[in-house]
Amino acid sequence: MRVAVVGCGVIGSGWASRFALSGFNVWVSDPAPEAERILGEVHANATRAWDILGLDTGRQGQVRLVGSVAEAVSGANFVQECVPERLETKRLVLAEIEEEASPEALILSSTSGFKPTDLQARLEHPQRLVVGHPFNPVYLLPLVEVVGGQQTSPESICSALRLYESVGMKPLHVRVEIDAFIADRLLEAVWREALWLVNDGVATTEEIDDAIRFGFGLRWAQMGLYETYRVAGGEAGMRHFIAQFGEALNWPWTRLTDVPELSDELIDRIADQSDEQSGQYTIRELERIRDDNLAAILLALEDRRWGAGDLLAKQRTRQEQLDRDRS
Amino acid sequence: MRVAVVGCGVIGSGWASRFALSGFNVWVSDPAPEAERILGEVHANATRAWDILGLDTGRQGQVRLVGSVAEAVSGANFVQECVPERLETKRLVLAEIEEEASPEALILSSTSGFKPTDLQARLEHPQRLVVGHPFNPVYLLPLVEVVGGQQTSPESICSALRLYESVGMKPLHVRVEIDAFIADRLLEAVWREALWLVNDGVATTEEIDDAIRFGFGLRWAQMGLYETYRVAGGEAGMRHFIAQFGEALNWPWTRLTDVPELSDELIDRIADQSDEQSGQYTIRELERIRDDNLAAILLALEDRRWGAGDLLAKQRTRQEQLDRDRS
Repeated sequence: MRVAVVGCGVIGSGWASRFALSGFNVWVSDPAPEAERILGEVHANATRAWDILGLDTGRQGQVRLVGSVAEAVSGANFVQECVPERLETKRLVLAEIEEEASPEALILSSTSGFKPTDLQARLEHPQRLVVGHPFNPVYLLPLVEVVGGQQTSPESICSALRLYESVGMKPLHVRVEIDAFIADRLLEAVWREALWLVNDGVATTEEIDDAIRFGFGLRWAQMGLYETYRVAGGEAGMRHFIAQFGEALNWPWTRLTDVPELSDELIDRIADQSDEQSGQYTIRELERIRDDNLAAILLALEDRRWGAGDLLAKQRTRQEQLDRDRS
Repeated sequence: MRVAVVGCGVIGSGWASRFALSGFNVWVSDPAPEAERILGEVHANATRAWDILGLDTGRQGQVRLVGSVAEAVSGANFVQECVPERLETKRLVLAEIEEEASPEALILSSTSGFKPTDLQARLEHPQRLVVGHPFNPVYLLPLVEVVGGQQTSPESICSALRLYESVGMKPLHVRVEIDAFIADRLLEAVWREALWLVNDGVATTEEIDDAIRFGFGLRWAQMGLYETYRVAGGEAGMRHFIAQFGEALNWPWTRLTDVPELSDELIDRIADQSDEQSGQYTIRELERIRDDNLAAILLALEDRRWGAGDLLAKQRTRQEQLDRDRS
């Protein structure tokens, strides 16, 4: 099986590495003079990271930088497009890919937020265009958002989901087509607020980063936002907890103030979905899962002497000192 | 040294546990009938978590639930207020604390977002009121935002920072007083967007959580938003990367569209702060730090068979299967 990667910046190189490390042969095209260097450096990083993970990197597929889009995509089973985030550029490159690729090839776009319906508008076989939006570093982060446009076939979606699962990823099928999909809508909201904080002189980039990585960032590595609140709400239940939260929506707690009405219907929907998501666990069980995960992450970061793990190491030293003082 | 905790829900209990596990004797007050049960359950969770971290939980201080605010705070060196998030409630309780506590006691409020200036307005000794805003679970997450009001003395801020450091935390001094401080402004932005996504039927709570914990949540457990973008920008540099991002601020990539103008001055400020933050590392070094951290977290979660770690385990099995098929 062969994959073509069209566009070889940080994202394209990350894709090429993940596909190759998973056993695919990968033909890559990019006219930029630095493409070869970036590809080599990212692939070295990726191989190093997979070695650390204890995965077998000895039997990886071949990665080859070729001279043209035509050369890269001809004979490929899958084509992953990774050119710059400009709608017209992407449309032109996708048309070129379609012209040169086998009629059976699945065409995947890495776009961060353009709707597949807009990307496929001028294709001759639009049913095989699927968005597969990854996150940097692509060779380590499992999430890939899979989004179909109005003309995408269900078979193409299935095929994309299977492909991404086969390379160790978590494909998330975004069922409703909106700009920026799911993750980037959340990221963009944080980004906008974080820009205000620097713009208004409230905090520096470092202070903002610390507010994230020593706090809710640790939570989000293992449970998301809703699950975290479910646990925090405890026995009072999601319904009660969310309703309590509602008041703050009317307070000036962000520069971003457009909020949905927290109607009973919306609260019910959230609570029902949360039950569906993790109703199989009691709150006590969820608390323990959360705590075990957090402790495991803190210990992992302590081995790295980094971030919150560094604090844990200091705490250990402090305790030992106290014990010595007492004895 | 003794600490008083006033208000004993999930946050108050978490504080009591962290202080006790760090060697303080803790007197707790809460009139609610379930306070004792919650305190016991949270403290059991906290002790269990610190055991997993390999910290000594055998020599912890005493935790005692007492009958009144007066009893809890009299003789305490530090008072941590944790009553419900209503301004008037907090003001009344803070006044009661002040009346009963020693004149030297430092008074700390756990408020998620009320300005200390508003909380201290009616106190007789407002200089000793400091916000110390923690994150759930308090006994595991290191972040605590330390915020002074217009009447808070610099000595009180120093004393709060020292106290929190002594219990293994990362106190972040929020230098400019704004509603919701830093972390909750970011959280509230995500929360509002996440509500829209459910409200508009785009995604379920589980899909949103997966979009977080399999993607950027893993990044944020170890580096924040700005640092992550610095690394992603690579050699092109922060200035170039941020400027590139600017275009998306004009796209409908979130429901939250109030954005600062991405002026040259703002871009310069961000780039300069980012250099200040991590200019001592090359981008290559930062990439390796990031990748090592991510690999360590993935391995830790694999041991837990949870989230992204579960995918890693599956990937390992898939590779072994491939190897067997080949041989």
